[in-house]
Amino acid sequence: MKPIKVILDCDPGHDDAIALVMAHRSPAIDLLGVTTVCGNAPLAKTTSNALRILELIGARDVPVAAGCVQPLARPLVLGTADGPSGLDGSPYLLEPTTELVPMHGVDFLAKLLREADEPVVVAPTGPLTNIGMLLLKHPDVKEKIARIVLMGGAFWRRSEIITPTEFNIFCDPEAARIVIDSGLDVTMVGLDVTMHVLVEEPQFKRLEAIGTHLSKVVLDWLRFYEKLHRGQMGIGGALHDPLVLASIIEPSLIETREAHVEIDLTATHAFGATVADFWGLRGLPNNVKVASRVDSDRFFEMLYASLTD
Amino acid sequence: MKPIKVILDCDPGHDDAIALVMAHRSPAIDLLGVTTVCGNAPLAKTTSNALRILELIGARDVPVAAGCVQPLARPLVLGTADGPSGLDGSPYLLEPTTELVPMHGVDFLAKLLREADEPVVVAPTGPLTNIGMLLLKHPDVKEKIARIVLMGGAFWRRSEIITPTEFNIFCDPEAARIVIDSGLDVTMVGLDVTMHVLVEEPQFKRLEAIGTHLSKVVLDWLRFYEKLHRGQMGIGGALHDPLVLASIIEPSLIETREAHVEIDLTATHAFGATVADFWGLRGLPNNVKVASRVDSDRFFEMLYASLTD
Amino acid sequence: MKPIKVILDCDPGHDDAIALVMAHRSPAIDLLGVTTVCGNAPLAKTTSNALRILELIGARDVPVAAGCVQPLARPLVLGTADGPSGLDGSPYLLEPTTELVPMHGVDFLAKLLREADEPVVVAPTGPLTNIGMLLLKHPDVKEKIARIVLMGGAFWRRSEIITPTEFNIFCDPEAARIVIDSGLDVTMVGLDVTMHVLVEEPQFKRLEAIGTHLSKVVLDWLRFYEKLHRGQMGIGGALHDPLVLASIIEPSLIETREAHVEIDLTATHAFGATVADFWGLRGLPNNVKVASRVDSDRFFEMLYASLTD
Amino acid sequence: MKPIKVILDCDPGHDDAIALVMAHRSPAIDLLGVTTVCGNAPLAKTTSNALRILELIGARDVPVAAGCVQPLARPLVLGTADGPSGLDGSPYLLEPTTELVPMHGVDFLAKLLREADEPVVVAPTGPLTNIGMLLLKHPDVKEKIARIVLMGGAFWRRSEIITPTEFNIFCDPEAARIVIDSGLDVTMVGLDVTMHVLVEEPQFKRLEAIGTHLSKVVLDWLRFYEKLHRGQMGIGGALHDPLVLASIIEPSLIETREAHVEIDLTATHAFGATVADFWGLRGLPNNVKVASRVDSDRFFEMLYASLTD
Repeated sequence: MKPIKVILDCDPGHDDAIALVMAHRSPAIDLLGVTTVCGNAPLAKTTSNALRILELIGARDVPVAAGCVQPLARPLVLGTADGPSGLDGSPYLLEPTTELVPMHGVDFLAKLLREADEPVVVAPTGPLTNIGMLLLKHPDVKEKIARIVLMGGAFWRRSEIITPTEFNIFCDPEAARIVIDSGLDVTMVGLDVTMHVLVEEPQFKRLEAIGTHLSKVVLDWLRFYEKLHRGQMGIGGALHDPLVLASIIEPSLIETREAHVEIDLTATHAFGATVADFWGLRGLPNNVKVASRVDSDRFFEMLYASLTD
Repeated sequence: MKPIKVILDCDPGHDDAIALVMAHRSPAIDLLGVTTVCGNAPLAKTTSNALRILELIGARDVPVAAGCVQPLARPLVLGTADGPSGLDGSPYLLEPTTELVPMHGVDFLAKLLREADEPVVVAPTGPLTNIGMLLLKHPDVKEKIARIVLMGGAFWRRSEIITPTEFNIFCDPEAARIVIDSGLDVTMVGLDVTMHVLVEEPQFKRLEAIGTHLSKVVLDWLRFYEKLHRGQMGIGGALHDPLVLASIIEPSLIETREAHVEIDLTATHAFGATVADFWGLRGLPNNVKVASRVDSDRFFEMLYASLTD
Repeated sequence: MKPIKVILDCDPGHDDAIALVMAHRSPAIDLLGVTTVCGNAPLAKTTSNALRILELIGARDVPVAAGCVQPLARPLVLGTADGPSGLDGSPYLLEPTTELVPMHGVDFLAKLLREADEPVVVAPTGPLTNIGMLLLKHPDVKEKIARIVLMGGAFWRRSEIITPTEFNIFCDPEAARIVIDSGLDVTMVGLDVTMHVLVEEPQFKRLEAIGTHLSKVVLDWLRFYEKLHRGQMGIGGALHDPLVLASIIEPSLIETREAHVEIDLTATHAFGATVADFWGLRGLPNNVKVASRVDSDRFFEMLYASLTD
Repeated sequence: MKPIKVILDCDPGHDDAIALVMAHRSPAIDLLGVTTVCGNAPLAKTTSNALRILELIGARDVPVAAGCVQPLARPLVLGTADGPSGLDGSPYLLEPTTELVPMHGVDFLAKLLREADEPVVVAPTGPLTNIGMLLLKHPDVKEKIARIVLMGGAFWRRSEIITPTEFNIFCDPEAARIVIDSGLDVTMVGLDVTMHVLVEEPQFKRLEAIGTHLSKVVLDWLRFYEKLHRGQMGIGGALHDPLVLASIIEPSLIETREAHVEIDLTATHAFGATVADFWGLRGLPNNVKVASRVDSDRFFEMLYASLTD
């Protein structure tokens, strides 16, 4: 089967790192390039992290371009789930020997899409600033986007952090609205499913048993990440971003429900809330496929397989 | 043990009706009076329903006063969970022979509180309009309110209805904010617990086995209510309001967590959202005890006991 | 000609004081009663000021009842245009010998209206909290309200104070919305006209020439008020509230334009903005008569006449 | 004196057209380039209008690049003040023989700024979308911007159109906020001054007397524009955009007051309101110079001079 062409737009971040690993290792995916955005850490750090991860996993050939340094219409808010560097706890990381693509990430996204010989899956795993600006600035590339599968939103559950809304949407709700109202095929993989993909002791055991260099690196990341999560919320580490990648490879990993989704831009305390009408009660067309269920065990089997030589 | 003095402020509604039954039947409660508000149905209907329920259960001595016909600062929104009359499916209901207290409900609340020889528990099970106006208009009565235990809010789960917020808060979020910011001892019994108190076949069986006139009436109400719920949301009937009453009698029925709660008044799509800071991250004092867990089985045993002669 | 029955709802305030004087002195007005509200000063002060003013002008027979201590849905904001007492600079003021009506102002308004043998003009010159609560709590009295002529709003000009919106509407925009959407005949006398009714040296000269006890008292008030205004905004003292009274006596004193008016309740920086559609462009019915022009000279002649024995 | 380097970012529009004429004709200005944005008309039309105007006035050497097709975070709203083409009533306009710069306007702005040997004055006369995106996407160019002098805002007066806010800010308030909060030297030339620069019969007479080809073209535009204005608002045509250009040439043409300005992004009816604190009452630093007075006669003399051979 022909691999699926994918562009990953990310803000690594430990779980973005795992997403990068899976994207690079899976034969089902042809990773055209990576763009970075501010979110889990400032742009300079998420970009450096992306380069270092790719260096580490031997993916020097994947081009990386740096995108937006701040959200479209809000002040910058940074995540805290990955430590100050955005990728703490990673002793193996090397300084990158590769150069960034000398182009703004938004324009590089447009270039990759225009040059692709078929529509491409765009996988944003951070705030949607780059994709929002892409759709504003280069509306012609829409026809080269097969689907957008993004990590974002919370529909039946809330974030356990101070805001009830999910972090990626909270950071740049205006960009998120541009994406969901673009008319494109958009799947939101939100906290409702990603909070069920928790890495804990049983998963650590399995990772230890693999014993490759890569599995050791990933194990280190995940131990750090799990500890931080447990300290903040009393639960294991949720593998938000890798689930996006895995569900592109295996769509049946998640169930989705179509809905008309609105993002609240005027709320004082709940801004960025993703409000879904699953019942058509407002008479508005469905614009999003909302992930509602996940097969977590199967996800982890895919992860383990991707780390085996 | 001395019974707890309680005033019930309600918008019956099937589950309010059960709350009235429990309040009247429990020796642990001294029901000083009932006030009505618009919510599940227009004020005229919720008031007539309150009178008819009290007539039916032989509680003609409980005084009833009609309160506000519309929310403080929003247009009137009516619920749909109880049928057009607010209490459909009740063939036994009689026309009331009692008269309303010839006083606005808000002033009657103030009168009952002022005349009470000890602080009183106020139990609002509908929108908080009456209580909000009471606190605005008669701020002196605060010292006669022991606690407010209200049905309202959704913290970890969302409403399954079109709004993600809970109906009582959604209807009159401004009044709700007055209540939670009053400095009084406020417990919010919200969807997080009430959606676990579901009446379904096993509960119907137990109710049938009781065999009193009252249990038959309640069974009829609950069968109607359950059917409507199942049709709208695919689940059994959630006994929101009776849980408030039951938890006043037996506080250990629910666990609560203290938090600083804000109600979103400016949201476009999520207005009325109840946003809690359980971690003190905003540096603001806790103003609410949020119900986080419920012992549903024990609740139902309390309900059955209250229907046995 | 039969005098016009008027109830004045006010927050004195120097300009409210002048409004009281004109209402009491004009043979064209039958002042049924006065209710007070928080605004220029806390309720205790505006109420005491109302009693003291009536004492001073020999109007002990006008009944006064105290209304709301805070806005319907916002925290209390107090004005600064009248000094801390709400009526600074008034050495003549006596302690009142009269008692307040032992009734909440909102209920007293309802009582006066119900007992009146013909519809009454209601003249609110402070925040609209009392009138908003009246319409919520006693909707039946609407039929006894001939018109509402209120001081509030700014349509073509902005406030020169930190908020661009007019103070009375800014204080309680939710109450203001209840009033303008009540279906009653509502005239808004806002900054567009009241800022043209400025008391300055020529007016002081004329007041001095009158030489009655009352004119001296009024002169003292106005000198103080003018000084404060000039310090804050560099202009003379705008006689906002008396213009409401004068325009009830002589409607031709102001020109009005009909419009559909909305009050912005969700704005962050411009909340309370009064936004008018004079052109029917939104397809919504006119709900307000907006004062657009005033004959300032004629107003002052009316004022002088009311102070002459 | 060395001419001032200027980039004009516009949405022609009749008054933008006059601004282009003045920028091209004035020896005091070195017009580096023109970028276009949606606003008075869709981007395709404002771009074509810019090219046709430059063709007509013999300014084929001024490079033009097309910018954003829609606002950053709002749906597109188009103006109505210039007719459907954005430049109706212009029989003289020729089809352009020049080509657009093959680059997005935002990137062309960045290029012009980076290549300039000294800081440049940026003059936006339409919605601020291009400039907002420029500051987001290319923050490094800030140091090459000498000042931003923009047409936008309304501080003491309101728009006479259905929104109380000025059109350019109303169209893209998020972009406007990026601009005013950029830390750059920003002057807002808003309705408070531009509504005093009205073209009417006396001005038409003077234009007729000039008798050049260019003055005839401009006269045609202005007659059309004035007629439309008079029909909509009953007043002459306000020369909003040319005043920006003229005040770059002669800063003393306008008086300004420094203020901390906020743009209301959450208002329902007043969104885009520009709220100024001229008094430092909020303790926030001044971020804008607000034009408060204009010498309209002198402006017109500058206009006439620019049309004379």
